Amino acid sequence: MTDYQIFEAGDVVLQSGLTYRGARLAYKTYGELAADKSNVIVYPTSYGAQHYDTEWLIGPDKILDPRKYFIIIPNKFGNGLSSSPSNTPAPFDRGRYPHFTVTDNVRIQQRLLREVFGITKVALVYGFSMGAQQAFHWGALFPEMVERIAPVCGSAKTSPHNFVFLEGVKAALTADPAWQDGWFATKPVRGLRAMGRVYAGWGLSQDFYREELWRKIGYSSLEDFLIANWEGSFGRRDANDLLAMLWTWQHADISANELYRGDLKKALGAIRARALVMPSETDLYFRVEDNRREVALMPNAELRPIPSIWGHRAGNPAQNPEDFAFLKAAVAELLAG
Amino acid sequence: MTDYQIFEAGDVVLQSGLTYRGARLAYKTYGELAADKSNVIVYPTSYGAQHYDTEWLIGPDKILDPRKYFIIIPNKFGNGLSSSPSNTPAPFDRGRYPHFTVTDNVRIQQRLLREVFGITKVALVYGFSMGAQQAFHWGALFPEMVERIAPVCGSAKTSPHNFVFLEGVKAALTADPAWQDGWFATKPVRGLRAMGRVYAGWGLSQDFYREELWRKIGYSSLEDFLIANWEGSFGRRDANDLLAMLWTWQHADISANELYRGDLKKALGAIRARALVMPSETDLYFRVEDNRREVALMPNAELRPIPSIWGHRAGNPAQNPEDFAFLKAAVAELLAG
Repeated sequence: MTDYQIFEAGDVVLQSGLTYRGARLAYKTYGELAADKSNVIVYPTSYGAQHYDTEWLIGPDKILDPRKYFIIIPNKFGNGLSSSPSNTPAPFDRGRYPHFTVTDNVRIQQRLLREVFGITKVALVYGFSMGAQQAFHWGALFPEMVERIAPVCGSAKTSPHNFVFLEGVKAALTADPAWQDGWFATKPVRGLRAMGRVYAGWGLSQDFYREELWRKIGYSSLEDFLIANWEGSFGRRDANDLLAMLWTWQHADISANELYRGDLKKALGAIRARALVMPSETDLYFRVEDNRREVALMPNAELRPIPSIWGHRAGNPAQNPEDFAFLKAAVAELLAG
Repeated sequence: MTDYQIFEAGDVVLQSGLTYRGARLAYKTYGELAADKSNVIVYPTSYGAQHYDTEWLIGPDKILDPRKYFIIIPNKFGNGLSSSPSNTPAPFDRGRYPHFTVTDNVRIQQRLLREVFGITKVALVYGFSMGAQQAFHWGALFPEMVERIAPVCGSAKTSPHNFVFLEGVKAALTADPAWQDGWFATKPVRGLRAMGRVYAGWGLSQDFYREELWRKIGYSSLEDFLIANWEGSFGRRDANDLLAMLWTWQHADISANELYRGDLKKALGAIRARALVMPSETDLYFRVEDNRREVALMPNAELRPIPSIWGHRAGNPAQNPEDFAFLKAAVAELLAG
């Protein structure tokens, strides 16, 4: 028994030129689709996350209200529910998994909306981190279909420093003895722990650590936070899946397709959706400055940084009432406009 | 043949309670000691560095002028020239190496000055990064001896976030298969490469990478920079030595001794030296804000951030004329005052 549905996307030719045969997109819906299909919100997943991890944000008193909206969470390819290294048969299993770009992801998501639900308008694409990257892609790939986007702590194109940060994460994971011949044959316990510790420095701000805000969310010491939160969150994932999603993140770029041919300015300029772009003031890898440059090239966008010392996690405020309130108010305003 | 000297410090009881038997401090001097011994500059080493790596800063047209000053570089314990895991005999070899705190380092450096040269006054302690931490320690441990300190991109106490960043570096290195039973028996090639890649994201700013400043210093692509510069710089070190120095860094604290008993405010207040504290505006782990809080508690200190997008490397500007000029002028001013 699962709580989600599968969209059988068939044989999909990916941007790489490889064909993924029998691609499966796992998704879950919340609320009811209006008769005129005008109340659709797409809420894509962030790095490492499945809908189980992100659906806390949906609820009557939450940021996305299922009483008013029909909300769809499409699980990212590579996340273990949609087609992923961990569930792909040979010869495309594990290290031979054909990489999905963010563009590949969003195009299949759009097919899901069209083919299964007959949806032609999306009221909002809301996303955090890699979910924000998918929101930008929705805006650029389907400008006539998307009315609003709210990218939170994410960029239209992965910045060079963000790429380097991910190189470090990847190198830590693949330093593990289980990394052999381009994939993991067994679970890399050391590598997953190392990945968590490397990530810990990036995922929250320097000020978060100085102020010891981990005390507020149930951790008894810094080491307790590093083990329970960071080692724990990566340790329960499949390592080959984590690498596949990391590749997707590193190569995110709304202009890397035949529509825009690498012209980022053109791709940003093509986004018609009303956009409320919300980086965290203290995010160390998806930075305000990168969004500022992107927003300047978008015709209908506002930059609204989240005033927070929670770093990247300001955009995923499950345990953080101030940032939650900020995002809730901003999304309500965007949807009303 | 070596170009440096050894101070035989004898059997040293360390802060940990362990005795390091036959401790050896490697040092090199530049210039001539004045008859009144009033022209002494101490220039301690940074993480991973030996005097070979740092002496570029000494010269007639450089930041420290050996025509006027008698400059001493004491090599940090753990750096492979002074007593280190790589040169310590059993039973204190490798994983059993007795850790030296920064306080242990500076106390032995002070003995070198007193016992070998009869020096009782130091005109300046200048240091970058862990060298800056040693400068702060000199000021707090020997307030009557030290006239000036110039800590560049370093703090009096390692901040919690800085500690976490180093946890990530350490975890990446020790994810290597060669990490067994608390030390490396063979060279951890994967781990050293991972360490370099993790460090790359931290060592320079996000803006450095966006502006591709690596082009200015002889690298042909981002990947070329990551391999040649970052994997290269750690790959030539001894991994057990790198871990020992990392431990020293993580535990740096001018108040962690019997003089101040953890009272950082008291320790900072005890520094009589005129201090010119120079963080980089874009340093990601030794941050301006941490120095700002420290300077506020020091009686005779000025905070002067380096306006640079070179991140931490603004403080080690071998390839960076603007930041070099900034530091040169600041040190000249400090020494004139």
